[in-house]
Amino acid sequence: MAEPQFKKVVIFGVGLIGGSFALALRRANAVSEVVGFGRSAQTLEQALQLGIIDRIGDDVAREVRDADLVLLATPVAQMADLFARIAPHLGAQTLITDGGSTKSDVVSYARQHLGKHRANFVPAHPIAGAEKSGAAAAQADLYAGKKVVLTPLPENSSGALARVRRAWELCGAVVNELTPQQHDEVFAAVSHLPHLLSFALVHDLAQRENRDLLLSFAASGFRDFTRIAASSPEMWRDICLANRDALMRELMQYANELHVLYQALERRDAGKLEEVFAEARKVRSNWTPQ
Amino acid sequence: MAEPQFKKVVIFGVGLIGGSFALALRRANAVSEVVGFGRSAQTLEQALQLGIIDRIGDDVAREVRDADLVLLATPVAQMADLFARIAPHLGAQTLITDGGSTKSDVVSYARQHLGKHRANFVPAHPIAGAEKSGAAAAQADLYAGKKVVLTPLPENSSGALARVRRAWELCGAVVNELTPQQHDEVFAAVSHLPHLLSFALVHDLAQRENRDLLLSFAASGFRDFTRIAASSPEMWRDICLANRDALMRELMQYANELHVLYQALERRDAGKLEEVFAEARKVRSNWTPQ
Repeated sequence: MAEPQFKKVVIFGVGLIGGSFALALRRANAVSEVVGFGRSAQTLEQALQLGIIDRIGDDVAREVRDADLVLLATPVAQMADLFARIAPHLGAQTLITDGGSTKSDVVSYARQHLGKHRANFVPAHPIAGAEKSGAAAAQADLYAGKKVVLTPLPENSSGALARVRRAWELCGAVVNELTPQQHDEVFAAVSHLPHLLSFALVHDLAQRENRDLLLSFAASGFRDFTRIAASSPEMWRDICLANRDALMRELMQYANELHVLYQALERRDAGKLEEVFAEARKVRSNWTPQ
Repeated sequence: MAEPQFKKVVIFGVGLIGGSFALALRRANAVSEVVGFGRSAQTLEQALQLGIIDRIGDDVAREVRDADLVLLATPVAQMADLFARIAPHLGAQTLITDGGSTKSDVVSYARQHLGKHRANFVPAHPIAGAEKSGAAAAQADLYAGKKVVLTPLPENSSGALARVRRAWELCGAVVNELTPQQHDEVFAAVSHLPHLLSFALVHDLAQRENRDLLLSFAASGFRDFTRIAASSPEMWRDICLANRDALMRELMQYANELHVLYQALERRDAGKLEEVFAEARKVRSNWTPQ
């Protein structure tokens, strides 16, 4: 039998994203040893018991020195510190990737802290469900058939890019490439804005005196529209601030769209309303999620 | 065995709402004969073949004269004409109800056209899925456990109200009462506004040059947020115009909410963003659909 592609993988953050990465590589027989780091001793212990990791790491310097691959699967807000912590100890061949939902900020942290190891850092954003979290939610098929966006750096060697791509493909993912800026603009539009809008609607209703009455008549349309308003406030606060400029542009454009609809209502412009709704329906009906 | 509660029920519009009403009353052994009217001969024929109706009506005057109950399950835009058509022929005891998604407008049509028969008209809004349509989508359990809002008129006799309530309860529905104005305000907030917002987001993205790229990276959050943007443009055009005043107030308030979030982004106010998101998450997580 062939040697696994990765002898040693070190994962910071063994929750949904990091844990599923480990389980998927294991199932593909692509890794010999997985070492986990994290801020919660309880999560690490759980990850060990669930067979997600082989060992809980206790010395970052020693563990990253001979690692083939390091995955940063922590909240993005922790990544600058992590880059600074691992940079002095990384092996010359050690590859680095991450699972953050924003990319320009992660790339700028890498530029500040990774030094020459930037050549081995290939940023990634796996587009996989974020409603659940924690090691217990990790599953080997989380990435199966799902998109992972890589945002390679100009300094990446083709070998580093190819091996990190291969790692995500071994997890079952369909890998795409965008620049960090393209990535952040795309996700401001199709993910960050909808989350903000959904939070805003629920917050709006939550402030009302008659909110219990209102919510008692909310049905399946409201349920689906607001599902993402149950997402993590801390995570989305960070994403919104990390991708602030693109998100502000999206929000401004959306406000203009609402203004057009407001005016159409004001004028009782049935034709305009129907035109907007029909165009939306056509595009939405022809779209299927990955 | 007891006599069915309703000897003859006449239904205008034998699609999802009207057809399911007929099937549910049949299953409850609550009706002896169902007569259907509609604008599409094909739909009526299909309803006959599916056992939804016993007969296709061809003379409105004759059919409504001895009907126990008439259901208007057409688009709301057709109801004024229908009231005018049936009013001269309704029996003194014939009850009338409807399935429209807005109520102030339906009530005003009834006031214009139903004359003394308003005492027998109990407006209703069944809160049941609207994504599918047509007789083929009708099902006997569509209303099982679902809310139906009655918006009784001051002139309704208690007997008329009780019998119409009973009809919907026989369909399995949980019946609530609101005034027509309360109804329209509640549904502007929890249904009409979210639909408008969802249409607006998809329309916004659909106008972009890079819309195919954007949509190729949209995932499950976008899928759920925009599910209702695949709803019928004609139906939602009519609902938005029928409930225009309440919807404009909601839209204005929502625009203010977005403005607050825009300012928080502008100021990099992490605390404000997290506060809004956390409040939304708490309310959404504690809410369960009916």
